This record gives sequence, C-alpha cells and structure tokens, in this order.
Amino acid sequence: MSTARFAKTPKPPYYAVIFSAQHTPHDASGDDSAYHTAAERMGDLVGRQPGFLGVEYATEAGGYEITVAYFDTEENIRNWKNNAEHLAVQRQGRKAWYEHYEIRVAKVERAYNLQTSELA
Amino acid sequence: MSTARFAKTPKPPYYAVIFSAQHTPHDASGDDSAYHTAAERMGDLVGRQPGFLGVEYATEAGGYEITVAYFDTEENIRNWKNNAEHLAVQRQGRKAWYEHYEIRVAKVERAYNLQTSELA
Repeated sequence: MSTARFAKTPKPPYYAVIFSAQHTPHDASGDDSAYHTAAERMGDLVGRQPGFLGVEYATEAGGYEITVAYFDTEENIRNWKNNAEHLAVQRQGRKAWYEHYEIRVAKVERAYNLQTSELA
Repeated sequence: MSTARFAKTPKPPYYAVIFSAQHTPHDASGDDSAYHTAAERMGDLVGRQPGFLGVEYATEAGGYEITVAYFDTEENIRNWKNNAEHLAVQRQGRKAWYEHYEIRVAKVERAYNLQTSELA
C-alpha cells in the first residue's frame, strides 16, 4: 500500500484548510517558473510551520487543484496565513496564478480509512 | 471566471467530508466500467440526499483523487453513509477500486475566496 500521498494525521480533533482552485491558463501549461519556485518554497516553509501536520493535494492537467493542509490549531493556521513571505505569495497568487479559489477552514471531528471503515 | 468546479456553499457552519484516495491500477487505467457506472450513480444519488450542499473533486491521471462533499449537518452525512445502495458501493470500493483512502469529517467554521481574501 502506498501511503506517500496521505497525511499522517493524529487522532481528531485537528484542523483542515481546504483549498480548491482553478489556475490561470498560463500556469496550467506548466511553464510558469515563478509559480513553481514559489510553490516549492511554500512547501518547504509550511513544513517547518509550528503545528503543521501534513498536506494532501490532487492537481488535474487542466489546472484545477484541491489541496488540504492539516494543522493542530486554528491559531497556527492564522500564523501561517500571516507569515510575511507567505503573504507576498498569496498576493501574487490572487494577481496572476489563480482564476478562482475557495478556502474553507474546518475542524476535523472524526476520521477513518479503508482499513478502519468497517468500524466507523 | 469559471465557477462550475466550485461548490456553492452557504455561510458557515456546515460540514465537509474530505475523501483522499488512491485507486487500484485497474481503475486508474479508466477501463473499469463497473466503477464508472457506480460513480455516476452515486453522483446522482448524493445530489438528491437531504442536506447535500455540493461537491468538489480533483482526480490525477495516476488514480489519486481528492473529493470534498459538503453537507448541512453531521446527521445528514451519517444518513448518506448508511444509504443501502451507497453501503453496497462502499463495500465494492474497499474490495476492488481503492488501494487506500482516508475520510475526514470536518465542521467548516469559516470560508473565503479569491474575491474576499483581502478581508479574511
């Protein structure tokens, strides 16, 4: 079983930031090196953010993506949102990289998986 | 702006079911008609489920997907989980269609999007 694409989250409760987004056509083509550099940098940075628990993402060829980042508390989500370097990238994302996105902050109350489904 | 891929959810609070999954190789190849028939049927059925608010999904060519379904209450999530036809499809999914999946049930507490980000 491959688990590399699944976040190893603790027992609930914890928090999820659900990010669904449509990239602008320029980015969907995959040739926007500024976007990719920023995305890689943000991946490194969030991994060192206090309370970060993991991330899962699926990206379609047409530039539609869903990314879910997990944190221990809402406060740590706000700290990450207000990180100065992250703020600059968010501004650039709104200006150039995303046609639309929705962000939902949610408290995970219960969780199960293929192995534990029978018990849920 | 394309909004077809974004669920038109009401003001929080409401609930999200976050489903991240790796399909078995058979399904990733796209030739499993039983899976596609069931997926289409479940899409129809969930759309008529009380309290269903919308769904967003991103599926990669390699068979990794994230689907987020939104409901008004946890009770309506449980009702959908326990729908007889859905239960049969869940069993088939565990047996044949998914290598692994994680399901997280979460209460959406706040939400914003590209247009309202500056205010969040």
